[in-house]
Amino acid sequence: MSSRIQIVLVETTHAGNIGAVARAMKNMGLAQLVLVNPRNFPSEDAIARASGADDVLESAVVVSTLDEAISDSTLVIGASARLRTVEWPQLDPRECAETVIAHKGDRVSLVFGRESSGLTNAELERCGYLVHIPANPEYCSLNVAMAVQVITYEIAMAMRGGAIDGDSGIKPVNAAEMQGFFDHLEQTLYDVGFADPRRSDKLMRRLKRLFHRAAPDSEEMNILRGVLSAAQGRKSMRRNNG
Amino acid sequence: MSSRIQIVLVETTHAGNIGAVARAMKNMGLAQLVLVNPRNFPSEDAIARASGADDVLESAVVVSTLDEAISDSTLVIGASARLRTVEWPQLDPRECAETVIAHKGDRVSLVFGRESSGLTNAELERCGYLVHIPANPEYCSLNVAMAVQVITYEIAMAMRGGAIDGDSGIKPVNAAEMQGFFDHLEQTLYDVGFADPRRSDKLMRRLKRLFHRAAPDSEEMNILRGVLSAAQGRKSMRRNNG
Repeated sequence: MSSRIQIVLVETTHAGNIGAVARAMKNMGLAQLVLVNPRNFPSEDAIARASGADDVLESAVVVSTLDEAISDSTLVIGASARLRTVEWPQLDPRECAETVIAHKGDRVSLVFGRESSGLTNAELERCGYLVHIPANPEYCSLNVAMAVQVITYEIAMAMRGGAIDGDSGIKPVNAAEMQGFFDHLEQTLYDVGFADPRRSDKLMRRLKRLFHRAAPDSEEMNILRGVLSAAQGRKSMRRNNG
Repeated sequence: MSSRIQIVLVETTHAGNIGAVARAMKNMGLAQLVLVNPRNFPSEDAIARASGADDVLESAVVVSTLDEAISDSTLVIGASARLRTVEWPQLDPRECAETVIAHKGDRVSLVFGRESSGLTNAELERCGYLVHIPANPEYCSLNVAMAVQVITYEIAMAMRGGAIDGDSGIKPVNAAEMQGFFDHLEQTLYDVGFADPRRSDKLMRRLKRLFHRAAPDSEEMNILRGVLSAAQGRKSMRRNNG
């Protein structure tokens, strides 16, 4: 279906689920699986549940950090079973599919967390969007492979339905460049005396959410980095000349 | 979600799949499961995979024929992995959901066949409609619990009326506030020595486009204005103290 979309599983505990994800992916025409610190892989359980999607398992890439998994991606969407208290751009699976289709030049990571606890807040903050599968409020946590199936099914349906012409022509920078910008931004906030360490987490979350939504391209990123350096530069000038 | 909808599994071989179906059903708010000649039920494997949806398993009804399972139903839809040569009303999962919603007075059976071979022609002919999940033509057979998940997900989405609880909750500031921010931003760029008057128009256009895309809400706007003031503040400090 699309070689620009990869499924990222973070610290999956049960190898059987990895196999079931491989099968779900292949059913929906996807081939690229990235595993962040799987507890048990490769595994016979994974092969048994993959049920013929062995090729997806064999070509799966194992990495040790989420950052490594998503470094090439320009659109990162994280699955969340919870409706977060922090406001973050949140999609249902159909909107997620529309977003993937609309960002047609992007390399996409769809990120799924641990069976027991999903993705951490820090991991969710690596994502430009969250996708949430509407479910029974009293029993809302889907099996991880089921979640992959539903979300990739929606993408397959959207791709059949013809391209959506929502392309803005903007090619956003990748996740590593975003992270570099966030690091620079955080440092600058300290340097200009804005950030108070005690409230910095929430502040940075809000700013990250804002800039993820804006999805700057490389030219815009150069401008933003230049602005930050100028703001920091005043401080060094003040140090040097003051 | 709806007590008028039941899931019927015909001659399921692997008890684990029955458990996974129970979990998928409960996630989507369904409770009525009917098993036609399951090979192995009740079973520890089913309970393990149900992962808390034991109530669905405990209230499952076991019968010996499909006719018995669907005797109370007025709308029967059978899942088929194959595109049948016989002409039969065929739905994709979204159309299936619309059909279930449209037949609002009906008692509905959604019927799923054996892992290895699906439903027989005789069983499919008991159904008023077939539902087929679009899939990779070279690898089109979904796990039975995955198929239940996708189809019940579509019904849950249709019952929500396409409504999305994933509203981002962001209420962007109005145009006047955006303009006030842009004026402040432009002044700050001069103050920190970033903006060169000769290239300022193009620069501001790029930044405006970026922030329009981000569409900040009022809390985010407060943060951005605070950052600008802090960056400017360094300058006044420098003036005053330098």
